[in-house]
Amino acid sequence: MNNMSALAKKLGKRIRELRKKQDSTSEKFAQENGISVGYFCDIENGKRLPTLEMLEKIAKALGVPLRELF
Amino acid sequence: MNNMSALAKKLGKRIRELRKKQDSTSEKFAQENGISVGYFCDIENGKRLPTLEMLEKIAKALGVPLRELF
Repeated sequence: MNNMSALAKKLGKRIRELRKKQDSTSEKFAQENGISVGYFCDIENGKRLPTLEMLEKIAKALGVPLRELF
Repeated sequence: MNNMSALAKKLGKRIRELRKKQDSTSEKFAQENGISVGYFCDIENGKRLPTLEMLEKIAKALGVPLRELF
């Protein structure tokens, strides 16, 4: 696994963990925050590395500072 | 200022601060780490938001964990 996919996996796991704390599904969370459901699922599954803009949007929706995702 | 440029400014400032601690110039640092000098200067100046791959590369070169940049 290269560094990029290791980072994507780690971020996805962290995002999923925080999203579940909100008692939301990935589909609901994505829709409520104007994120494509497919894109969000790929992020949670560590299949895509989000842009920093997207990550900032997700952090805001999760109610945590950006650094909390790392 | 929108969120994206606020984030770019904050990141650039933090990167510059850590790069200076290495007693390196932005040009030297970029060249030594295989980053385009112009791109790196734009990042430090908060004019461009780096990708997460680039940010990870920079963090590694600065010898800090990625979360330290936020």
